Formats: sequence, C-alpha cells, structure tokens
Amino acid sequence: MRLALAIDLGGTNIRAAVVDDTGNILHRADKSTPARQGAPAVVAAIADAAAQALAQASYPSIAGMCVCSPGPLDTITGVPLGVSTIDGFDQFPLRDELQKALGQKVWLENDGIAACIGEWKQGAGKGYQSVVYMTVSTGVGGGVVVDGHVLRGRRGMAGHVGHLAILADGKRCYCGNPGCLEAYACGPAFADRAREKAALAPQSSLHAQATKLEPHDVFAASMQGDALATELVAEEARYLGIGITSLLHLYSPEVVIIGGGLSNSFDQLAPGITAYVQANAMKPYRDVPILKAALAGNSGLIGAAELVFATGA
Amino acid sequence: MRLALAIDLGGTNIRAAVVDDTGNILHRADKSTPARQGAPAVVAAIADAAAQALAQASYPSIAGMCVCSPGPLDTITGVPLGVSTIDGFDQFPLRDELQKALGQKVWLENDGIAACIGEWKQGAGKGYQSVVYMTVSTGVGGGVVVDGHVLRGRRGMAGHVGHLAILADGKRCYCGNPGCLEAYACGPAFADRAREKAALAPQSSLHAQATKLEPHDVFAASMQGDALATELVAEEARYLGIGITSLLHLYSPEVVIIGGGLSNSFDQLAPGITAYVQANAMKPYRDVPILKAALAGNSGLIGAAELVFATGA
Repeated sequence: MRLALAIDLGGTNIRAAVVDDTGNILHRADKSTPARQGAPAVVAAIADAAAQALAQASYPSIAGMCVCSPGPLDTITGVPLGVSTIDGFDQFPLRDELQKALGQKVWLENDGIAACIGEWKQGAGKGYQSVVYMTVSTGVGGGVVVDGHVLRGRRGMAGHVGHLAILADGKRCYCGNPGCLEAYACGPAFADRAREKAALAPQSSLHAQATKLEPHDVFAASMQGDALATELVAEEARYLGIGITSLLHLYSPEVVIIGGGLSNSFDQLAPGITAYVQANAMKPYRDVPILKAALAGNSGLIGAAELVFATGA
Repeated sequence: MRLALAIDLGGTNIRAAVVDDTGNILHRADKSTPARQGAPAVVAAIADAAAQALAQASYPSIAGMCVCSPGPLDTITGVPLGVSTIDGFDQFPLRDELQKALGQKVWLENDGIAACIGEWKQGAGKGYQSVVYMTVSTGVGGGVVVDGHVLRGRRGMAGHVGHLAILADGKRCYCGNPGCLEAYACGPAFADRAREKAALAPQSSLHAQATKLEPHDVFAASMQGDALATELVAEEARYLGIGITSLLHLYSPEVVIIGGGLSNSFDQLAPGITAYVQANAMKPYRDVPILKAALAGNSGLIGAAELVFATGA
C-alpha cells in the first residue's frame, strides 16, 4: 500500500490527509486558513497541518505530497494568479516556498482539477475516459478529463467550467467576465435570488427569514411543498442545465459529475438539469449521465493523492 | 515523401486532394455534392473524386485516406448523427460504405477537428501544444488540442466550439440550443443583422442593397468608412470575443486560430475581438494570441492527411 499526503487549501480551512492508493483517508488534520495574514503565514499553517497529519501515520514514508488550491493558478510554475480569498497570494511562488518549508517535492494543482481526478479515479467517474466534474458551492469550479487525459492547457489553467458566459449581457462575475455560469449558479447567487423573491412573497414559508436565507433553507422549503422555493430550485437547475449543455458540446464527456455544497441537494436539482439538457442539447449528447459526486467533500484530497501516485513522485 | 488522400465533404462541394507529409497539396479533384440525392449517391461521388485525384498522382500508393465531414458525427463508429446539409446521412454507416466503395481503410473525422489538426501541424498553430481552432462561415465549428492531445471525447464529438450558449435567453440555434455562439456569430446571422439595420438606415451606403447584403459587403463598406458597417463589424467581433473569452477559460489554449469565410476579414475583426478579451477574460488568459488561419480553405484537407500520417495508416 502506497501513501500520499494531500492538502486541500481553501479560503477558510486547510485540510491535510494521509491517503492510500485505493482512495481511503487514513489520517486527517484540519486548521483554519490565516487568509488575512499574508502568504508566509499560510505556508506555515500548511506545514503545520502536514506535520500533524503525518505524525499520526505509522508508515515511515509517503510517496509524495500534493496541495490543491483555488485557481486560477499556474500549476506549471506553481504560482497562484489571482486567488481572491487569500491575501498576498497573487504571483506568490507557492510551490517553491512549500517545498522549502516541507523539505520535499510538492505538487500544486487547481482544486477543481484535483477533485475531478479524485472522482475519475475513485468516485463517480470510475471506469470512464471522458469526465466533466463541476463543483457548485461558493463558486463554480471543476476540471475535465477527455480520452483519459486530464486537461491542463497553457499554465495548467484549463477546465474553469464556471467561467463560461451563459448570459453575456447579464451580470458581471467576480472574475470580471459578464454573465458567467458562476455568477448565476453559485450558492451565493442562488441565495441572493431567494432573499429577493422571498421578501416580496408573504405567502411563502421563506418570507419570514427572507433576509438570511441560505440555499439549504430553500431546498428544505421546497421539500415541504413551498411553491416559491420549488420555483427557485427549478431556476437554479435551469442555470446549471444551460452550463452543462454547453459543456457537453465542448468536451463530449461520457459523464458529468456534480460536487460541492449544492450537490447535497442533487436529487432536487437533477430533474430540472436533465429536463433542460433533454430539451436543448444536440440529440447525440442528451443521454450522457449526470451524477452526484461520490466522494463528498473529499474529492480534492483523494484526487491530490492520485496525482502523487500517477506521477510516481 | 509520404502521400495521403484527403477528402473534405461539405454540403455544397466534395474536395479531394493528394497531400504530402509537409502539407503540400499535389493534386486535386472537386465535385459538387449530390446532397439531395441520398447517401449512396454521395458515397459514389466521393469515390469518383477520390479516383480523379489519385489518377493524377504518379506515386504508386498512398499511406491512407481520410474523409472529413460536418458534425456531429460519431467518429469512433464512423456514423453521422445529424448532418443537416446532406439528405439521408443521419445514422448512415458512412465510413463502412466508403471502405466498401473504395476498397481500403478510411478514416472519418469531424471537419472542424480535421481543420484544427491541419492548422496545428502545418499552419498557424505549428509548435504549440494547446490550440483552439474556430471556423466562422455558414456555421461556427472547430476543434481543440490540449497538451498535445486532440480532444475527441465520447463518440468523437468534442470541440463543438460554436455550440456554447452565450445568450441563453436569446435566439435558438439551428442545433436546437438557445443562444449558441453560432446563432449570433455565423455568417448568415451577421448578414441578417446587416440587412435588418441597413433597411432602417438611409444614410448608410448599405441601404440601397439592404435586402441582399452579405458579410463581404459589410466589411467592404466599413473599409470605406461607413458608420453602420463599422458598427456591424464591431458587433460581430464582440460576439466572437464573448465566445473566445469563454473558450480561453475552458481550454486554456496557447493560441486561438480563426478560419472560415469570415477570417478573410480577420484584420477588421481582430481589434474588436481582442478588445473584448482584454476587457473581460480573467487576467492570466488575456495575452493569448488570436491568429488568422494560415492554410486558407485547406486546413481540413491538410489536417485529414496529417491524421493519416499520425495514425500510421
């Protein structure tokens, strides 16, 4: 059994794990991200989490270490290029500094691509050769495998599946591009629509708490039969369906996998997504299965470990 | 010197060529496509064009033969899945029937992917590892190479770069999907906008011929300083810029290459495309060069030949 150290770096938490080559997470250590304290503090916190996870491992050595981080980042040179959630990360030589702090070779990967690899190798995408993975939570990210090849592209920046314009005359995405899928389908956009509409709908069970609605409130109310909530869920599913229809035409995957916070309510979103794809995708693309991620919040960690094993580091 | 027989099948013409392994077209034979006479007539016409091209070749044999055709088509099984311009082609076993008619192995490839390969191996994309090729003419098609890998995906249907929804609440594409890039940026859509606006603009030089305007009329009038024509060119460039911005985020190419009829006016479109990308793409994607196709109308033929050489057929 081979082991890898995988680290999922987010704007809120750093999650370190020792993972085996069948996708089992054996040991874990989580820390909060010192996101406002500058890049060196984040490097130190990652090193700390890594040491804590490794201290629990009885095996004497690991095959390698991979850190996944939000993008865009240049994974060829190991440099973040605009991570909005962590101060001082833009152009910071993250991979080199991590290698110094940890005294070993470190792989750096986009978290969406890592999660895609995790689902492809050990999750819902197992056995397929072409996979689109999309995570829907604070943002919309992901990664893509085509013909057994993980798409990286120039500077390793391929697969930003949340940043295709679906309504180019519409609202500007935080990334700067008008009308991105992310601007409409991410959790906060869904919550904003819910708050706005619930405030104007006294007949809805969402009305009383309108100002502080979160996606899970809307899904729960829809389960109870609330008409506005059901309409909001259908609208969210439609946006996802629009994006997925384009992604089918662009990548021709054998399967589309949805992860991230909103995939907890996959069963409520799936009918609307599927209906949109069935009605609008070109006919030969309509029968592609759309599945829920199988590794829950661990797709990225398991994918990071798979990267270590695949590259023989 | 190796030779391949390449055939570019279109809704109007069948073009056959003997091509060498440096991208030179040595012999040609063109025929019109009997598009309304059923699939067997098309197969016979292809065989005829192939025989005419081969009859001019002094070399005794060719390395193989590749036919490229509009998609979507399943290039794994060699079956068209909805070619709208040729009657009786849907589900027709094109590759097998061609093999029977020609008595040899035949490769079938999507014409956009073949043209992408042509530009990548012998044209504007030479030396790059990640290339997006987009053809803008009657439709918007293309193909994609990422990390040196030609994207094919499920049933070989990846890279339909004209069929991402850029304005999903907008007009339905002929493919069925609302708001596709093709529905806004293809030649006929450009011509429709020109006709509509010119009819209402007596001050424009386009007004007199408003009902029969073609894209080349608009480009010519813009060169002469006509304000409406210049506005129409800018609008066309903006649609292309919207699509290309999304394609940069999705595939992260090192270069974007534009071919097809409208690329004859590439120099007039390029400033508007670049301005849109500069203003809206995520920062690390803004410096990707956008180039005119180098092989003019022969990208597909040369790419089809390259496919034969690459697969060692």
